Amino acid sequence: MTFSAFAALATKQALVPFVYEPAPLAAADVEVEISHCGICHSDLHLIDDDWSSSSYPLVPGHEIVGRVVAAGDDCMLAVGQRVGIGWQRSACLECEPCRAGHENLCATQQATCVGHMGGFARRIRTDGRFVFALPEALDAAAAAPLLCAGVTVFAPLRRWGIVNGSRVGVIGLGGLGHLALRFLRAMGAHVTAFTSSPDKRDDALRLGADAVASSVSPREIRGLKNQLDFLLCTVPARLDWVTYLQALKPNGVLCLVGAPPGLLQIPAAQLLTGQRAICGSDIGSPAAIREMLAFAAEHAIGAQVETAPMSEVNAALQRVRDNRVRYRMVLTN
Amino acid sequence: MTFSAFAALATKQALVPFVYEPAPLAAADVEVEISHCGICHSDLHLIDDDWSSSSYPLVPGHEIVGRVVAAGDDCMLAVGQRVGIGWQRSACLECEPCRAGHENLCATQQATCVGHMGGFARRIRTDGRFVFALPEALDAAAAAPLLCAGVTVFAPLRRWGIVNGSRVGVIGLGGLGHLALRFLRAMGAHVTAFTSSPDKRDDALRLGADAVASSVSPREIRGLKNQLDFLLCTVPARLDWVTYLQALKPNGVLCLVGAPPGLLQIPAAQLLTGQRAICGSDIGSPAAIREMLAFAAEHAIGAQVETAPMSEVNAALQRVRDNRVRYRMVLTN
Repeated sequence: MTFSAFAALATKQALVPFVYEPAPLAAADVEVEISHCGICHSDLHLIDDDWSSSSYPLVPGHEIVGRVVAAGDDCMLAVGQRVGIGWQRSACLECEPCRAGHENLCATQQATCVGHMGGFARRIRTDGRFVFALPEALDAAAAAPLLCAGVTVFAPLRRWGIVNGSRVGVIGLGGLGHLALRFLRAMGAHVTAFTSSPDKRDDALRLGADAVASSVSPREIRGLKNQLDFLLCTVPARLDWVTYLQALKPNGVLCLVGAPPGLLQIPAAQLLTGQRAICGSDIGSPAAIREMLAFAAEHAIGAQVETAPMSEVNAALQRVRDNRVRYRMVLTN
Repeated sequence: MTFSAFAALATKQALVPFVYEPAPLAAADVEVEISHCGICHSDLHLIDDDWSSSSYPLVPGHEIVGRVVAAGDDCMLAVGQRVGIGWQRSACLECEPCRAGHENLCATQQATCVGHMGGFARRIRTDGRFVFALPEALDAAAAAPLLCAGVTVFAPLRRWGIVNGSRVGVIGLGGLGHLALRFLRAMGAHVTAFTSSPDKRDDALRLGADAVASSVSPREIRGLKNQLDFLLCTVPARLDWVTYLQALKPNGVLCLVGAPPGLLQIPAAQLLTGQRAICGSDIGSPAAIREMLAFAAEHAIGAQVETAPMSEVNAALQRVRDNRVRYRMVLTN
C-alpha cells in the first residue's frame, strides 16, 4: 500500500507529487482519508527549514479534516467517522504535563508533519489519541484551520479566564487573529482589533471586533491606556511592547502565540506597576481542542477560507507567502 | 499638638529630630502611638530621592506597629487596639481596581511616607481604612516587617495559587526572601532558596528552604531545569533570566517584586515553549494584608529582626545600607 502526497524534496523547494509507504497501522492508530488540509505559516517555515528541524522529503500539513478509513484495535474512533488532526501527533502520556492534561507541553511530543508525513496528501496514519471527532455542524473546509490556528487562540482565552464582559485586544488579523475575533464575540468579550492593514478594518468589525486600532501607531495604542484585561498577539512581529503593556489594566496579561525575532525588551517597572504579566501560549491540549470544537459547533464558528485543489498546492503556498489570503487557505482533495 | 519624629531635611541627609503639627483627625482617620517601625529599602530610596518623588522634610517609615490613641467618628478601630500600617495610605475606593478589592493597584493611591509624615516617629495620623488590627499572637517587633515585606511576598504566592506540594524558588535572602521562606514552609511548598551569599545557606535551610542554590551560578540554576512551578524574585538585581526561566516547569511563572535596573531581555521563545510567564507584583491589597496577618498568627510567622532605639535611626539605616542586617531592622520607641 502507498499514500499519495505532495512533498518538498529539499529546503525551500516547490512541492512535487510524492508517493510513500506508510508505517504499519499500530493498535492506537487511525488511518484517515483526507478531504481538506489548511495551510499554516508553520508549513512554510518547515519547507524553508527555518527552525532547523526539517527532514526531506517533507510532506507538510497539520490542519487536517477527513474520514476514518481504518482503526487499530485500541483506537476509540470508528471507521466512517469525520475527524480532525492538528499540529501534535503524539506525547509520552506519562510525564507531569501529560498527566495533568497538558500534553501539548510534553517534552517528548512529536508533530504531525515533522519527521512524519503530514496532511498535504490523500491519506495519513497517525496516533488516534490525537485525532478528534469533528462535530457534524462544522463545515469541513472552515473547520480545518480550527485544528491549529483555532486552538492556538482559543486555549489562552480559556486559560486566562476571558468571560462575558472581558475587554480584550487582538493584535494581527490573519489566520489566527480572525478566528480570535470570532471566538471572542461568541464569548461576549469587548474586543479591540489591532491591525497594520487599513484595508482590514471593515473586516475586523464584521468578524467581531467592537473597535479597530492601528497595531503600529503608538498614538492609537496609547488611546487604549489601562483599558484591556488581556492582549493576544497573533503576529510574530517586533512591536512596541512597552506601549502595548500600558494598554493593559492592572493585573492585565499580554499573551504571545507567535515568537517575534530577537529579544523582548521590557522595563521591569512595566510589569511591577499594575502587576502586569507577559506570557506565551503553545497551541493547545487535546482537551482544549475538544472544547474548542464543541464551542465552534455551538456558535457556528469556522475560519473564513479560500480553497484550492491539492494539485495547486504550490500556487496556494505562494498566496500564503504573499499574505494575500483572506484569511486561511485550505487545500481540498 | 505636635508629633515628634525623625526627618531627612534634604536629599541623602542624615535624619534629625523633627517636630510637626499633624493634620486634623478626619472622620475616617486614626491616630496611632507607634511602638515599632521597620526599615525597608524603600525608605533609603526615599531619603536618597532615587524615585524623584521625595519632598522634604521627609519622615520615612511604613512598617508600623502601635496602638490606637484616637479614632475619627467613622473609623472602625477602637482606642487601645494594637494595629499595623504598611506602605499604602489611601486609595480612591471608587475605581475598577478599588471596587475589585485591588486597592493597591489604584492609580491615585497615596503612600504612608511619600508626601505624608511616616513611621519614624512617636505618633502618626492616617486613614483608618488602611490600618489593620494586629492579631494578639504576633510579637510587635517581628510583625512590623510583615506590613510591607511580608505582604509583598505573601500576596503573589496566593494570587498565583501556591499550595501544598508546589515547587517554588525564592531568589534573594533578605527582608523579603526570608519571610517568603517562612510563609512557603507553612504553606507546605517545596522550596529552593537562591542566594548569592554562601554564608546564608544554613540560614536558608533553617528558615524553611528544602534546598539552596547559588543565585548567580548558571550551572546551579540549570540543575533545577523544568522543576519549579513558581519563582519569586525578591532582589532588584539583573539576573540570568533566560536560565531562570528554564528552571520553570511548563506553565510556570517568574514573579518580580523588585524592579531590576535596565531592561528585561527575554527571547520570546522562552515564554512560548512551555507557556511560561513573567510578571510583577506590587505589595498587596488590604484584603491580602488581613489574610497575611491571620496566616502569620496561625503559623507563628514573623520576621527575624534586629531592633534599635528610634534615637539610633541613622546607625540603623547605615546597617541596612550595608546589607548587614539579619534580616530586618526594626526601630523601637
